[in-house]
Amino acid sequence: MGFPVVGVVGGGQLARMMAAPAIGLGIALRVLARDAGDSAALVVPGTEVGNEDDLDALRAFAAGCDVLTFDHEHVPTEHLRTLQAEGVLVRPGPEALEHAQDKIVMRRRLTELGVPCPRWAAVSTVAELAAFGAEVGWPVVLKTPRGGYDGKGVRLLDDPADADDWFAAGVPLLAEERVAFSRELAVLVARSPHGQAAVWPVVETVQVDGVCREVVAPAPIHEDHALAAQQAALRIAEGLGVTGVMAVEMFDTDAGVLVNELAMRPHNSGHWTIEGARTSQFEQHLRAVLDLPLGDTRMTVPQVVMANVLGGDSPEYDDMYSGYLHCLAHDPGVRIHMYGKQVRPGRKMGHVTTLGSDADDVRERARHAAAFLRGDIHG
Amino acid sequence: MGFPVVGVVGGGQLARMMAAPAIGLGIALRVLARDAGDSAALVVPGTEVGNEDDLDALRAFAAGCDVLTFDHEHVPTEHLRTLQAEGVLVRPGPEALEHAQDKIVMRRRLTELGVPCPRWAAVSTVAELAAFGAEVGWPVVLKTPRGGYDGKGVRLLDDPADADDWFAAGVPLLAEERVAFSRELAVLVARSPHGQAAVWPVVETVQVDGVCREVVAPAPIHEDHALAAQQAALRIAEGLGVTGVMAVEMFDTDAGVLVNELAMRPHNSGHWTIEGARTSQFEQHLRAVLDLPLGDTRMTVPQVVMANVLGGDSPEYDDMYSGYLHCLAHDPGVRIHMYGKQVRPGRKMGHVTTLGSDADDVRERARHAAAFLRGDIHG
Repeated sequence: MGFPVVGVVGGGQLARMMAAPAIGLGIALRVLARDAGDSAALVVPGTEVGNEDDLDALRAFAAGCDVLTFDHEHVPTEHLRTLQAEGVLVRPGPEALEHAQDKIVMRRRLTELGVPCPRWAAVSTVAELAAFGAEVGWPVVLKTPRGGYDGKGVRLLDDPADADDWFAAGVPLLAEERVAFSRELAVLVARSPHGQAAVWPVVETVQVDGVCREVVAPAPIHEDHALAAQQAALRIAEGLGVTGVMAVEMFDTDAGVLVNELAMRPHNSGHWTIEGARTSQFEQHLRAVLDLPLGDTRMTVPQVVMANVLGGDSPEYDDMYSGYLHCLAHDPGVRIHMYGKQVRPGRKMGHVTTLGSDADDVRERARHAAAFLRGDIHG
Repeated sequence: MGFPVVGVVGGGQLARMMAAPAIGLGIALRVLARDAGDSAALVVPGTEVGNEDDLDALRAFAAGCDVLTFDHEHVPTEHLRTLQAEGVLVRPGPEALEHAQDKIVMRRRLTELGVPCPRWAAVSTVAELAAFGAEVGWPVVLKTPRGGYDGKGVRLLDDPADADDWFAAGVPLLAEERVAFSRELAVLVARSPHGQAAVWPVVETVQVDGVCREVVAPAPIHEDHALAAQQAALRIAEGLGVTGVMAVEMFDTDAGVLVNELAMRPHNSGHWTIEGARTSQFEQHLRAVLDLPLGDTRMTVPQVVMANVLGGDSPEYDDMYSGYLHCLAHDPGVRIHMYGKQVRPGRKMGHVTTLGSDADDVRERARHAAAFLRGDIHG
């Protein structure tokens, strides 16, 4: 047995950020990207261009890899089952991955596992939605079970009739009570095929318009809630047979934590671990899918803040360079990560991480850097 | 102006370790390697294969880069002068680089700068060497001015006649007094074209048979000596017009520090900075050659040890994998870096870094991991 090859389906920034730890670990990384200009394709040699919907492309790609993993959850489960039947190591496997692809499947399974969730129902008609709303109170959160991300596929409804168009598609929708939460949390957990699992400290995620804006580690919450959140994440990872990194998004409420969403891959809520934890989520994901021993998940400093750099109004990636120069000069300790992507308003172009011991200071530094890179502040 | 392209001449592990921070910074890295299987060529897309002695290959490579830098010092100075005259940004420039290529040029300049050095002389004959030995005492250290590394090109002589073969080549040699030192030190400094400079904490380097075996950060030395060492490194960087990272190897003696050697690039004595400093030498080198603001050089923890993993008797790189599995399981905090190189006895195959607060513990962990990877311990 020798140093293995990990194949990542998808060429986004998550695959890109796996490249650095792969270099260190001596693990060869391969990427299947839709486009040769994708974020990861720019930095990983020998990237293959192909579509994750194409079984033949997946099969050819997998043939050169010891294990197959993912940059996103949009690979058809049936293709993964086929590959698995053909002997490909798919991690996370399709059985686990389905819980991150279908929110109704996820809610059903978490409820079976006894994991605290918001009250929910699978609803197929306006009448069912109305009944659910009458039970839990309005407004109700309605979600398409598949394909949503960054606030897409989610509606807050005061009136069941406002979902007519979605019901017209003829698939069940997920209705959830609107939770009165004090903050949103995320717990990152890694689990290996042989069952070793490790969680990082619980973080607070700050969302703006459904998109993660900043992440604060550790989350300023009661110790009991943090422990419960970590225990829930570990129970989910074990119960679903997750291999690799999973992010569990939660609500912190007076009554405790409730699980909101799952992502079965490295996640935006874990970018802070690159510098803020002894083992980053990207390294840990590689270790986990290869069934290598997991690394130390403790923090490197008391306080870490990650802020996303979203595409502003500047039409070109290179236009961000002047803000970049300012940020590096302004704060020699700020950690800037750029993804090499063409700018679109609101698109995740990169992120910044700041580290320290004073929570307010660390947050202020991250906000300043992210705003400058975006172009909100002109120096 | 947009995100720049850095071209690295040479495909060794130093170029390889520049790849990870380049990905983070959003800087495109290109490599000119002798062989497509070289350490950096394995991980950097679009690596060009060519020889650094070939001016046309250098010129073609430089045409696709915003700045040219180096993995090693073996590029002919005259080629660099030609490229510079043609408008290529060469960093460090040939004027500075010559001091890392020719030890007599280096000694002469450092002496002019008032930097403390061992007593030295350029000697062209056995008689001159004998006279120098009579003055400073035997044994004398004799060095070929060019081409030496890792203990090659260095002799400890009790008798001037033992250098007959070297004098036969007809080029002057560098004779130095043998310094009674308590330990060997290294100071890493980065300097930008516009003159910003930053040093990391002084480290102790432990050499075995002329090859660096381990590096201890910070060096356990008197504060005054550490300060003098950093000041000397800054004076050299300024005096020589260095751009990029330079390692200054020194002797710590009762009377103070004396400069031994210079390396004008990231250096083995700085690998600890990847995890042990807020900005690694590899990231800083990229920032410096691009004239970007330099990053924070403070340590992330109180104690760091880096140990080299040298090729043992196993004939295959992949044979190191079982030791690798052990190390990851044994110590979840150990940071392993593999270079992807074919094994040769004594060759630098990788390194390990351990971090903590107890110096003995951190050192013991690093030694254990390095020995296991080398194959000295069989578990």
